[in-house]
Amino acid sequence: MDKISKNNNITWFNSYVCREDRERLHDHGAAVIWFTGFSASGKSTIAHLVEKELHSRGCSTYVFDGDNVRHGLCSDLTFRREDRAENIRRIGEMVKLFVDAGMIVLTAFISPYRQDRRKVRSLLKDGQFLEVYVECSSEVCATRDQKGIYAKAKAGVIREFTGISAPYEVPENPDLIIRSYKEDASQAAERVIRLIEQCKLIR
Amino acid sequence: MDKISKNNNITWFNSYVCREDRERLHDHGAAVIWFTGFSASGKSTIAHLVEKELHSRGCSTYVFDGDNVRHGLCSDLTFRREDRAENIRRIGEMVKLFVDAGMIVLTAFISPYRQDRRKVRSLLKDGQFLEVYVECSSEVCATRDQKGIYAKAKAGVIREFTGISAPYEVPENPDLIIRSYKEDASQAAERVIRLIEQCKLIR
Repeated sequence: MDKISKNNNITWFNSYVCREDRERLHDHGAAVIWFTGFSASGKSTIAHLVEKELHSRGCSTYVFDGDNVRHGLCSDLTFRREDRAENIRRIGEMVKLFVDAGMIVLTAFISPYRQDRRKVRSLLKDGQFLEVYVECSSEVCATRDQKGIYAKAKAGVIREFTGISAPYEVPENPDLIIRSYKEDASQAAERVIRLIEQCKLIR
Repeated sequence: MDKISKNNNITWFNSYVCREDRERLHDHGAAVIWFTGFSASGKSTIAHLVEKELHSRGCSTYVFDGDNVRHGLCSDLTFRREDRAENIRRIGEMVKLFVDAGMIVLTAFISPYRQDRRKVRSLLKDGQFLEVYVECSSEVCATRDQKGIYAKAKAGVIREFTGISAPYEVPENPDLIIRSYKEDASQAAERVIRLIEQCKLIR
């Protein structure tokens, strides 16, 4: 074990087992498929469908979304700009460890700011961050929204809501665009699987 | 997919793939082996040896320690009491997701407060949190310390240092005690492996 000193009283170990070992064990590459788009655009639905297919092919996978992050790791954060940045920062750091653990991670967060998404990408190696833009206007998303959160946002009951009272910065160069206003979720999931195959993460 | 409404504008999905599915895929149980003890007591060394053995048996594993957490997810936190609590809280929430992802996680943090460790345990199900106390006096740890951080702590250069200027609360009911002042790391690792076998996480 190689022990490397740092200047801040925290010691670095190189462990016996590295990401490549875990990828060999799992028999697939490790990466994050980062879905971004409005609330109710279909990110989570598609991510879970992709996970189902990957799992059936024997891949080690995990989905992160508001469910398991906003109630846990980031339960102390609001939806204000600086808290959104911290939310995505923590998710990025966690995703980095999941990728190091040899997993295919799927994330479903609005993640409206380019700068925040870029920071996550910068934590990972080339080919480990695939950005999937789930394109759907906030008007269409509002019609799908069973819980009426768009209506609450329009009424000002919920503040700083992406697409209503907070901005969304469209990805400039995503690895895949899903047009969820005209494509159904299972077709979209198939296209994501194809992307993962093309990137040679799975066979 | 079962969609459950919550009262705080965050929607819960039950995913198609659950922890039990991932445990079946990995062919072992998921849990965290939580090492606690002074700095330089041997936590990280033992955790990495255990990981090496588990990986060689085909298990999906990951080690968390100061290396990959204090520089990343918790890079904004100090060693003050409230920041230590937040550090362990975030680690606990992340560990919960790794366990849900079907992995055997090994953590090597001083984690000096009972209350903080208890909170992590409470996030997990029975049998998913195994506490390993790495017992070694701060005097002995200081003699092993290659970087002189104990000397710096004694000189007051580093403040709130566990065992010198901050308390350590000994586990009341750990699943295993390693006496690293008289047991070598590979023997200790073997005993941890036996514990994991006894808990039927691995065969």
